[in-house]
Amino acid sequence: MNAVVITIGTELCRGTVADTNRGWISRRLDAAGLAVAAGLTVPDSAAAIGAALSFALSLEPDLVVVTGGLGPTGDDLTAPAVAAALELGVEVHPRAAAMVSRAVAERPDAGGMEGRTAAAGELEPHQRKQAELPVGSVPIEPAGTAPGFVVSAGGVPIVVLPGVPGEMEAMWDDALAVPAVGRVLDRAEPRLRRTLCFYGTGEPQVSEAVERLISQSGVEVAVGICASRREIRVDLEFAAEDKDQAGCITRELKNLFADFYYSSGAAVEQVVAEGLINRGRTLAVGESCTGGLLGGALTSVPGSSRFFLGGVTAYHNDVKMALLKVRREVLDNVGAVSEPVAQQLALGARSQTGADYGIGITGVAGPTGGTEDKPVGLVFICVSSQQGDVVERFDFPGDRKEVRAAAVTAALHLLHRKLAADGV
Amino acid sequence: MNAVVITIGTELCRGTVADTNRGWISRRLDAAGLAVAAGLTVPDSAAAIGAALSFALSLEPDLVVVTGGLGPTGDDLTAPAVAAALELGVEVHPRAAAMVSRAVAERPDAGGMEGRTAAAGELEPHQRKQAELPVGSVPIEPAGTAPGFVVSAGGVPIVVLPGVPGEMEAMWDDALAVPAVGRVLDRAEPRLRRTLCFYGTGEPQVSEAVERLISQSGVEVAVGICASRREIRVDLEFAAEDKDQAGCITRELKNLFADFYYSSGAAVEQVVAEGLINRGRTLAVGESCTGGLLGGALTSVPGSSRFFLGGVTAYHNDVKMALLKVRREVLDNVGAVSEPVAQQLALGARSQTGADYGIGITGVAGPTGGTEDKPVGLVFICVSSQQGDVVERFDFPGDRKEVRAAAVTAALHLLHRKLAADGV
Repeated sequence: MNAVVITIGTELCRGTVADTNRGWISRRLDAAGLAVAAGLTVPDSAAAIGAALSFALSLEPDLVVVTGGLGPTGDDLTAPAVAAALELGVEVHPRAAAMVSRAVAERPDAGGMEGRTAAAGELEPHQRKQAELPVGSVPIEPAGTAPGFVVSAGGVPIVVLPGVPGEMEAMWDDALAVPAVGRVLDRAEPRLRRTLCFYGTGEPQVSEAVERLISQSGVEVAVGICASRREIRVDLEFAAEDKDQAGCITRELKNLFADFYYSSGAAVEQVVAEGLINRGRTLAVGESCTGGLLGGALTSVPGSSRFFLGGVTAYHNDVKMALLKVRREVLDNVGAVSEPVAQQLALGARSQTGADYGIGITGVAGPTGGTEDKPVGLVFICVSSQQGDVVERFDFPGDRKEVRAAAVTAALHLLHRKLAADGV
Repeated sequence: MNAVVITIGTELCRGTVADTNRGWISRRLDAAGLAVAAGLTVPDSAAAIGAALSFALSLEPDLVVVTGGLGPTGDDLTAPAVAAALELGVEVHPRAAAMVSRAVAERPDAGGMEGRTAAAGELEPHQRKQAELPVGSVPIEPAGTAPGFVVSAGGVPIVVLPGVPGEMEAMWDDALAVPAVGRVLDRAEPRLRRTLCFYGTGEPQVSEAVERLISQSGVEVAVGICASRREIRVDLEFAAEDKDQAGCITRELKNLFADFYYSSGAAVEQVVAEGLINRGRTLAVGESCTGGLLGGALTSVPGSSRFFLGGVTAYHNDVKMALLKVRREVLDNVGAVSEPVAQQLALGARSQTGADYGIGITGVAGPTGGTEDKPVGLVFICVSSQQGDVVERFDFPGDRKEVRAAAVTAALHLLHRKLAADGV
């Protein structure tokens, strides 16, 4: 079974605002057993919205999800455009109007009437607009002030939600609870999905092994392989009845690349977090070029306070010396971007916080600051523990953002391997 | 003039990998004067790629950009699928084969031959596959091992590049240099764009003012208004001849919301970075719930070492006391998530680094750790300088990720206002 996701917004087409809704919705549909046959993004234009909806329906999906363009402003055109594309009229939906009235009353900043719930007739035109839905729609309670709705296109439910990510996400469960949508999900049969994540080996080698194992097994498998910052993610999708072959292929693949395997889909920060928590070990970081992003990644894991004590971002050399006890003569002799300084940052992070593990990162993120000896992309990373220190040198490609992100990923994997080496 | 962007990848449709290419490309096309009429994402399937390309061409664009599916693995189907959709054959392109040979020789991890450049005939099948292009294509030098290409569909150039963001970005300029593509860009006439960014006022108020000013001016203006984490971004697009009205409308809008205006499109971290650098002031941060993300945002600005000294992520209370001199009795009396602790984190960041400005953040990011008194989303932020301290309390909606991101944004804006209040 298939679904199509349409996100609406001129700012999304321009790329000035990142489109996070499409990924969020796609992950949920995919998990429910609805493959996303296409994702579309179009500007706030009635013609474009109509064309996108026609294309979506031409793919014969079981469900269409649309976000964006339900707000109170003049460029919010989605409800009438969807109605026009389906050759339906629009009308003020009484239940939607009541929802808007309540929402406005609760949010004085949205133009509320001093806490009093307005009758639908009392709504300002821009507020009432949010209750004008295609004829036959089922409204969805707003998380902000704009209701969503579900309308049917020849039996295919079209779910329409606001574009503000927090609002859309808060309204998602209510949208699935609309009977027409629920019936689609009840029919969806999740295929078997197996994910394997590797770090540090080549994509062609993994790909070749995957193809060989599949052709040996004789079953049909949908394969997705994706490499980014030396991480390789393999997604395999099997028919529900091929459970044994799924287990067999994933086991063999894991064995073939055992030195590189790190998870069945979880991010590496999640994996190291679980490792540290399970063994009761603590961690602190001493960052330079990554500016706090390594700490940010580690603390993205809920419950990270159980292992993460803290960190120092030692951008200026004085801060390296004052807060992490990096020695001045080392800085003077070999410079801040060097193996010894990475090591002293890691040791300093441990000694100043009492953590079992310390990570030190120093490098040249660019765009300026590179030299012939120490070019942009050069990064030294150290992981230190009572069992000893490991330091690695990396030469990352790409711009400042890419170098910093790759350094964070590499540091987390270096920690992952150190934990394994230490028997933690 | 219009363009369509198509990104290809089953993992992008599933949402397991974020689609950064579409935004990156859209921003560049938009800046060049090509409005993005639609963005499409489809899985690695020849039928889906064909349908996407047909839909794209039905919008009568001046340019189509496609990324993804050019690699060596079995699920990389883009070149033959594009050829089939355009009713063209595929053939090993001699220049593309030479590019692959060179690229493979330089990258032993991609299966190179000990540094020796292979003749095209010596390439492994999975390597040669990357040189099989639609008949009539112009190849583009690869940044990894997969060449891109430009092929024409009835006069509309179709640019096809690899999906790995670093490779695609590195090959972009070469793609634009292909004559057929260059001719399109030469014809594109950038419209006048004006962007205004506000923080802390209501979207409906801004929207109403924009509509009123435009209707008074009598000119046609394309409007995009986007609100996220209390930031409101207004994009206005004018015809080239309406320069005076563009200046007038943006000036009036800026005056109406002068207390809330912060930039003409630049991110707030860029704005505060420039303010600090221009006045020769320095900054340090003391973070708790944001785990380093504030430092990460500040150091995303190239040249941030000119104002950012460093920071301490004091996750554990012992680290708050040891590295930022937060007093134990304050932690015991009012708890870590409190106004006094935010202030002591900011003061500690200043005193321990010698910075002119200090920011302290403490809060409950969730999902656990919330109480009736201190619910998830409660965050205290302090900005401290010699001229005094300001502390604000925030109650952010959303999940852990959203609360942390909103706290970083709020901290940067609090700093922005403090700099203005201090006359910096």
